[in-house]
Amino acid sequence: MPFGTLYLIPVPLAEQAAAKSFTPYLVDTINQVKEYIVENEKTARRFLKEAGLKTPQSELIIHDYGKHNRDIPINEFFKGLVAGKDVGLMSEAGCPGVADPGSEIVAEAHKRGIKVVPLVGPSSILLAVMASGFNGQSFTFHGYLPIDKVERSKKIKELEASAQKNKQTQLFIETPFRNNPMLEEILRSCAPKTRLCIACDLTAADELVQTKTIAEWKQKVPDLHKRPAIFLLFCS
Amino acid sequence: MPFGTLYLIPVPLAEQAAAKSFTPYLVDTINQVKEYIVENEKTARRFLKEAGLKTPQSELIIHDYGKHNRDIPINEFFKGLVAGKDVGLMSEAGCPGVADPGSEIVAEAHKRGIKVVPLVGPSSILLAVMASGFNGQSFTFHGYLPIDKVERSKKIKELEASAQKNKQTQLFIETPFRNNPMLEEILRSCAPKTRLCIACDLTAADELVQTKTIAEWKQKVPDLHKRPAIFLLFCS
Repeated sequence: MPFGTLYLIPVPLAEQAAAKSFTPYLVDTINQVKEYIVENEKTARRFLKEAGLKTPQSELIIHDYGKHNRDIPINEFFKGLVAGKDVGLMSEAGCPGVADPGSEIVAEAHKRGIKVVPLVGPSSILLAVMASGFNGQSFTFHGYLPIDKVERSKKIKELEASAQKNKQTQLFIETPFRNNPMLEEILRSCAPKTRLCIACDLTAADELVQTKTIAEWKQKVPDLHKRPAIFLLFCS
Repeated sequence: MPFGTLYLIPVPLAEQAAAKSFTPYLVDTINQVKEYIVENEKTARRFLKEAGLKTPQSELIIHDYGKHNRDIPINEFFKGLVAGKDVGLMSEAGCPGVADPGSEIVAEAHKRGIKVVPLVGPSSILLAVMASGFNGQSFTFHGYLPIDKVERSKKIKELEASAQKNKQTQLFIETPFRNNPMLEEILRSCAPKTRLCIACDLTAADELVQTKTIAEWKQKVPDLHKRPAIFLLFCS
């Protein structure tokens, strides 16, 4: 029997953003797939409902791949796929495997020769690059920077130097409750002419995307506390 | 009068991929926006029709921002926005400003304090990172590599070393008619255990996404001639 297909299913980044997030193909796909590997079962079931799931939730097989379940042998997640069932992979927000868990599942699928199909959907990284006005021909996403203050300042200066030298857009994120100290550190560490884009609450009603120089940002520092944000640096 | 909003509107990557590409919000947006800045007027009109445009095409104002029009002063494109009109920005494929022209328009909008709203849609870069199974917490998109053979081989080896050292996924593209020589160069330049993902014809009927080691790819080399592809390198 041929293997099933592993569908990579993006989920919304914000509340009440279904119309901004789901393509008709994604809605069709979730109505054909009955088995899921997810980062969090509760939110996964909510996303499926929000996307327009017609299958009764009780008929779904959901494997929770959350933090507390990382010791489950990866084989367990592949029984359905190996038996020919199509399976959907979902993370907690955005695209599975991009700034989110899930890539180990995808890597294992490739090793086993299982077909992998990525679906179009929201990615804060991609939306941020697009909306920044910075170089989209060359960019690096760095994930989280070091927490230690000295290390972090050093890293920010490295990224600024790399943006300058390579004309490469530099992206990074922070845990939302640490956004304000991060922003202060950026404003302290970078040169006045360096450009900073803050992309915040993407696809939400109070979405904020602004690109200014460090000098301009210093004149009016926004409050980013607990707002999901991406920071982008560029020099031109 | 307040300024209009600049909407960044992704377009499909492939033929007959409308259901995989357009969200309901995008369809609503193009039915409210009457003015566009586009990379190619002919394909832009086709995308709008494909997405479900109800406005008669004759009522649209379309500014062509194609290669032959780069000497037009950027002011010309902003008259509508400054007068309070919403404007859509579209490239030839995927997301405007990401591996595509458009970022100068977005940068100018930020300088003028015009609101920028990025819409969710297909990006071959993002789909490729997601589907590769490689590190999605740290990755660099490099655009095109040097054309010169010696330079290109050197660059590929640099990217491989960077993937190894920083555990960072390295992405790059090539003009589709040069894909086969590029693939040969990758197979020649990289170590047998290095992993290569080829993501080809994304969202098309004949989409191909496969991750293998260099040694495995050498056993059966795919024909990528004239197929839009992204190459990803990773070492783990």
